[in-house]
Amino acid sequence: MKIPPVKGTRDFYPQEMAVRNWIIDGWKKVSLRNGFEEYDGPIFEYLKMFQLKSGDEIVEQLFSLTDRGGRDLALRPEMTPTLARMVNQRINSLPRPVKWFSVPRLFRAERPQKGRLREFFQWNIDIIGEDSVLADAEVIFTTVDYLRQVGLTDRDIKVKISSRKFLAGFLKGLGIPEQKLGALYVLLDKSSKLPADAFEELLIEQIPEKSISDKILKFMTEQSSEQMIDLIGPNECARTALDEINQVFEYLKNMGVSDYCIFDPGIVRGLAYYTGIVFEVHDVVGELRAICGGGRYDNLLKDFGGPAIPATGMGMGDCVLEILLREKWLLEKQLPEARLEYFVACVDESFKDATVGITMALRSRGFAANFSYKSGKLSKQLKQASDSNAKKCIIIGEEFKDKKLVIKDMVTGRQEEVEEDKFFAGLEKS
Amino acid sequence: MKIPPVKGTRDFYPQEMAVRNWIIDGWKKVSLRNGFEEYDGPIFEYLKMFQLKSGDEIVEQLFSLTDRGGRDLALRPEMTPTLARMVNQRINSLPRPVKWFSVPRLFRAERPQKGRLREFFQWNIDIIGEDSVLADAEVIFTTVDYLRQVGLTDRDIKVKISSRKFLAGFLKGLGIPEQKLGALYVLLDKSSKLPADAFEELLIEQIPEKSISDKILKFMTEQSSEQMIDLIGPNECARTALDEINQVFEYLKNMGVSDYCIFDPGIVRGLAYYTGIVFEVHDVVGELRAICGGGRYDNLLKDFGGPAIPATGMGMGDCVLEILLREKWLLEKQLPEARLEYFVACVDESFKDATVGITMALRSRGFAANFSYKSGKLSKQLKQASDSNAKKCIIIGEEFKDKKLVIKDMVTGRQEEVEEDKFFAGLEKS
Repeated sequence: MKIPPVKGTRDFYPQEMAVRNWIIDGWKKVSLRNGFEEYDGPIFEYLKMFQLKSGDEIVEQLFSLTDRGGRDLALRPEMTPTLARMVNQRINSLPRPVKWFSVPRLFRAERPQKGRLREFFQWNIDIIGEDSVLADAEVIFTTVDYLRQVGLTDRDIKVKISSRKFLAGFLKGLGIPEQKLGALYVLLDKSSKLPADAFEELLIEQIPEKSISDKILKFMTEQSSEQMIDLIGPNECARTALDEINQVFEYLKNMGVSDYCIFDPGIVRGLAYYTGIVFEVHDVVGELRAICGGGRYDNLLKDFGGPAIPATGMGMGDCVLEILLREKWLLEKQLPEARLEYFVACVDESFKDATVGITMALRSRGFAANFSYKSGKLSKQLKQASDSNAKKCIIIGEEFKDKKLVIKDMVTGRQEEVEEDKFFAGLEKS
Repeated sequence: MKIPPVKGTRDFYPQEMAVRNWIIDGWKKVSLRNGFEEYDGPIFEYLKMFQLKSGDEIVEQLFSLTDRGGRDLALRPEMTPTLARMVNQRINSLPRPVKWFSVPRLFRAERPQKGRLREFFQWNIDIIGEDSVLADAEVIFTTVDYLRQVGLTDRDIKVKISSRKFLAGFLKGLGIPEQKLGALYVLLDKSSKLPADAFEELLIEQIPEKSISDKILKFMTEQSSEQMIDLIGPNECARTALDEINQVFEYLKNMGVSDYCIFDPGIVRGLAYYTGIVFEVHDVVGELRAICGGGRYDNLLKDFGGPAIPATGMGMGDCVLEILLREKWLLEKQLPEARLEYFVACVDESFKDATVGITMALRSRGFAANFSYKSGKLSKQLKQASDSNAKKCIIIGEEFKDKKLVIKDMVTGRQEEVEEDKFFAGLEKS
């Protein structure tokens, strides 16, 4: 009986696993050098935890399950609620700011599409307990630090930055009531993904007054802060938020990443919980979904039963990133080669025990070593050594009766005889 | 609103995450040096995949879920079914033997107990396509290679080895029919976990003839192969299987791990799919559950719709292992220290931009560097540098007006002035 894998999931054969490991190792390395500590939570949480604050969109996408006690659980679709729960649990003992990162496996019960699977990995970095936009800038810097490290230039990608506070100020200035904003954010977040006329139609459904919806359309496409100032007029909230945006750009310039960053008021983010600076990284060609997104969420810890503590963060999935890295030919040439330090071969079956013994002695000393189950011809074993990318091949033959090994350098092809004792003594030193 | 974590799951704060990473990194390192390649599959599969061949015990412990299309899925409780599915999918293109490892997160919907949680990590190594017991011995060697590397000696743990083929041969020799064996394995597997009289009672329920159940009880507790030969008599199947067991011990001696290994016919393994050598690693004191277990499963790939291909493997969870490592004081002293290469401090707020800029320049060059959001007093920043275990502290003060940095070695306390350009040029070289 043959059973297929579930649609929207991935099998990681060694080749795909090498890519996943390389991406995740890079995330971890860049997080650590930027001063973030690693954490993780459970794969599933109480369903109501995700219903609490993540907007309607994400709740529709949950994989839910029931345990034996009848409790409603769900596979995590994002990491931030777990982060809020964990920080709240130890709010009095954790030194602040909390600078944490995680690489959770996440789940969305939606129809699989290009760059969007039901099961994926997401790099999360968060800074909790710091209200200065310096923290927002540091999150953006860390994001660029990774993307630049893997070879993406400012001609490949752009960080598009705006502010939820700025947008909220502008929308309230137009007379749109607070309780309408959540649904409007979800729609505005889709503006670049929808055809222009389809988007306009949906906007008019929510905002029937044409003079107001026109202003919103104009706002979403303005690119300079000068034109923005005209558009927002004497709106105090929006002006304060614009100052903050400018401050972030000052920091990013000082951090050496301003070439990657542009102001884009069309950046909204769908989730309800953002409160300040928001950003997304997009490929310049604009063919792919956002590579990552993030922003400030100052109310979330409070909404999860904790004190009011400012927070800002970023999440980057592995799917779109991998597509982009492949398109730019940045993946395969950077993958580390699987390497074997020694392959141990024997000239015939009578030396099999010695072959096995020496292989295991090498492994015990920390060296990657392998041998062939089928002794067969030496040439066949040497081919296996070469196929497995071994640096050196140890050949066990007649010389072994005098306790000597033949060591063949697989790069130069040179061979030498070494006494077994001396060989192992030499290993310890290196 | 405060929501708790789900019972039987774990929150990995940075301290717990460091332990998890250290354990998993060790598993990966030892796997690679023993010639295994890493793979992984999805967290969930079709429910029927786990029902197919894993014995009743594991199916009761599944977390099941239904997707939007009404398909019955389950979180993976073990890795072997996914492995069988993946290997079968590419059976014609994969070079054999397949030597693969994985570190899946697994799930069991049971009551949490000491060393047994609802969500855990499990190291899996498998060799597929090799029927020689040399492969079984190699799996056991790799297991010991890891346990020895983390400091567990043959006075702490023992690998208890037997054979399902041996047990099956013996039981059939007593006249027990094939179809009764599955349920009997599940019971015999529990013999060491149940009080002697409770176990006997359950055994008599399955095997009412006292002469037969007595022989089974004797078999389960015999330790020498000489006594075994008496007990099994002229049973061909059992004798062949005993020869295999002896061959495994020969290999293990040659591999240098025989001090860790003993023959124990009481080792049964609960899962139905084992067909040959089986083993478990136990703490010598005998206080904990098995640290790991494994064995040969030559029919599994065929049962999953593939060809008949021999296979053998091992699975080790992280929970019992961690308990044992803590008991033996092997954990904390081996954890790598979190390290920061540079902490960048400033004498006052006027140097804040320079502080941020230099921190980011260091990070961009691959160095772990941090700074303080609140400039405050230098002494406070130096304390933060020391708390974060920084090797060096860069102090930005008046000297910076002449483009000079003060570098303080946090170990020796020595300070020196270096020109900024020279400092960064020197970094590139190292």
